[in-house]
Amino acid sequence: MLLSQDAQDLLFREAHTTYGFTGEPVTDDEIRAVHDLVKYGPTAMNGQPLRVLLVRSDEARERLTAHMAPGNKPKIGKAPLVAILAADLDFHHELPRLFPANPNARDGFERDEAGRVASAKFNAGLQTAYFIVGLRAAGLAAGPMGGFDADGLSKEFFPQGDHHAVAVVNIGRHAESDSHYPRQHRLSYDEVVTVV
Amino acid sequence: MLLSQDAQDLLFREAHTTYGFTGEPVTDDEIRAVHDLVKYGPTAMNGQPLRVLLVRSDEARERLTAHMAPGNKPKIGKAPLVAILAADLDFHHELPRLFPANPNARDGFERDEAGRVASAKFNAGLQTAYFIVGLRAAGLAAGPMGGFDADGLSKEFFPQGDHHAVAVVNIGRHAESDSHYPRQHRLSYDEVVTVV
Repeated sequence: MLLSQDAQDLLFREAHTTYGFTGEPVTDDEIRAVHDLVKYGPTAMNGQPLRVLLVRSDEARERLTAHMAPGNKPKIGKAPLVAILAADLDFHHELPRLFPANPNARDGFERDEAGRVASAKFNAGLQTAYFIVGLRAAGLAAGPMGGFDADGLSKEFFPQGDHHAVAVVNIGRHAESDSHYPRQHRLSYDEVVTVV
Repeated sequence: MLLSQDAQDLLFREAHTTYGFTGEPVTDDEIRAVHDLVKYGPTAMNGQPLRVLLVRSDEARERLTAHMAPGNKPKIGKAPLVAILAADLDFHHELPRLFPANPNARDGFERDEAGRVASAKFNAGLQTAYFIVGLRAAGLAAGPMGGFDADGLSKEFFPQGDHHAVAVVNIGRHAESDSHYPRQHRLSYDEVVTVV
């Protein structure tokens, strides 16, 4: 590994999905620095479908909490900052600017709604992972959650219907205790990788 | 940023989707080290749906190439190693072992095929991103591609029908010239992030 052991620990080995945070706030500038790093992560046709809502007002946090699975509602309340990550299902509108190498890309996706939605969600998945890695790179702790009513949440925050919520991420700094569960089992190399 | 500038450059700022590789081979041990790092990346319910086929035989490379989009066929030929990344649509079978905290998780996904397939693909997207980051962490260059016949490719390599190909990644080391395109435009913070 070319990446130092410290950096490996920071991003993967010692990082955990976090449930307990200190009260220290997370600033917009910190999230700006994360974006300025992870924006370089690759996406198909450079489409970059991920959009981020930073939930700062009590009113927005209440609206968000209403759509979370019961077990996740209290987790929302403990995080200094919560982000809603969503796929822009109309990301293809930006392709003439983002991927000028293929002038037909926008029209191709315009005609193929199912393919466009699938691409938006999958590539927003890539970018969700880059975002989690970026938060850790900034010294922040991330608590990503998939347990929520995606349709209800999307409608609540994106009433135009052109975005689909893919993840909700609690963001802050690890509390000293009770900040994460014990490491769970990971699949082995031989369970994951096959040579053909 | 807590992550050093060098590490930021290695993983994001100076990293590019690569099309030109040196002839130096990529060993299974190198991929094993990547897996040993990125296996810790979080997935929903710790489900880890990503499976990896390392394409080493000429015969498998030909079968793969047949399903790639025309523009991607020659890229395959230039890489010392190619990986097919796929979502295991039956990943829920492992949940009793991977996510013992919720003994009902497996049965819930057994009853909800649409939700299971969507979860497999999205979380395989997260893991595809971790894998790309991990290759870079190991000093390898990655050329991820989304342009292929996903149904045909999945059927070719996973005839049981329980896997869906999500990405094909060329792997090697940057050639000194013509190894990547110029950096393309990235969306700004204000285009991506909204505070509510």
